[in-house]
Amino acid sequence: MNNDNKKISMAVVKRLPRYYRYLSDLLQNGVTRISSKELSEKMGVTASQIRQDLNCFGGFGQQGYGYNVQNLFNEVGKILGTDHRFKLIIIGLGNMGHALSNYDNFKRRGFDIVKIFDIKPELIGTKINGIEVFHMDDLDEFVSNNHVDIAVLSVPYSQTPNIADRLGRLGVKGLWNFSPMDLELPYDIEIENVHLSDSLMVLGYKIDSKMKK
Amino acid sequence: MNNDNKKISMAVVKRLPRYYRYLSDLLQNGVTRISSKELSEKMGVTASQIRQDLNCFGGFGQQGYGYNVQNLFNEVGKILGTDHRFKLIIIGLGNMGHALSNYDNFKRRGFDIVKIFDIKPELIGTKINGIEVFHMDDLDEFVSNNHVDIAVLSVPYSQTPNIADRLGRLGVKGLWNFSPMDLELPYDIEIENVHLSDSLMVLGYKIDSKMKK
Repeated sequence: MNNDNKKISMAVVKRLPRYYRYLSDLLQNGVTRISSKELSEKMGVTASQIRQDLNCFGGFGQQGYGYNVQNLFNEVGKILGTDHRFKLIIIGLGNMGHALSNYDNFKRRGFDIVKIFDIKPELIGTKINGIEVFHMDDLDEFVSNNHVDIAVLSVPYSQTPNIADRLGRLGVKGLWNFSPMDLELPYDIEIENVHLSDSLMVLGYKIDSKMKK
Repeated sequence: MNNDNKKISMAVVKRLPRYYRYLSDLLQNGVTRISSKELSEKMGVTASQIRQDLNCFGGFGQQGYGYNVQNLFNEVGKILGTDHRFKLIIIGLGNMGHALSNYDNFKRRGFDIVKIFDIKPELIGTKINGIEVFHMDDLDEFVSNNHVDIAVLSVPYSQTPNIADRLGRLGVKGLWNFSPMDLELPYDIEIENVHLSDSLMVLGYKIDSKMKK
């Protein structure tokens, strides 16, 4: 609870996008203020958890008033960096690469997809959702000469380690990895692994274990 | 640590798909046994965490030998229910619905997509990756007359609550929700919410907070 300490635990950080979504919903519905009790009911976590989380970065609540939704939304957004814009490239235009290229939601959150890379000759030079597709051979030159924050990795399993290493060497700051492999790299690069099947297997487990009862 | 107690904590369950993936890799590379120390180095968690996790469901390690990879893979798979087959329907053939329909990895994990539902006239009657597309008007009849375990929800935000409620009433056992809304329903239904943007925002935060240092 030391507000001078700006280091926020990753557990709290991982909850922030959810607060951000809920607050965005509230704003859209014209709600201007909310108590931690109401917010906790909406979000399905305890009120004390919410107070603790929001205290981590200064505590915006006022006794007897609750939270000003717009202020809180702005502050959570600021911490998440939504006032910055990040430049993304997508590597691999398979099913997931296609879906992500067409996802306009990212732009609203501050993430601009600037280029797509693939190796299939018929794709090179085409545009997906207005974004040009380049050949992988041009990756190094593009990243060296343009500002790229994050590479979205949606390539086949076997190619993942090599391409990830190449991106690390090129100095990309973050990898958003969709291949079914947990990446760790010997570079100063942040990695978020997304394993869709994992979440599906957890769902299968929950259904299964309920049937066994 | 009570082996008689078959209830495994969700924290452990959520780690199991990762063990499953690693063990599958090891098998493919011809590795037949592994110590908890080696496994922990590969997975980037402590050896004691691994022993604790695997002890939760019986503890398959032998002193001085480590784990038999094939046995452990089978046991983790059994707990995750990979020896069962789950029947899935996909609701909403947008970007994500398309990508998921084409994802053959799910089948390998025990999940069969049996039907896709949408409302666009030009899609009805077509097949995506061999799976027929039905009209949403036929959803209730199909679910009532066929075995459906899980509905994959990839519909626009505004339609999510209504369709989720409809699926809950129809008695679907699980929802795999890709719309940017945390669902909670007054039915006996298991829900896994997947929010891709959340993970991207966490990545943005990590990059941002490193630059501020």
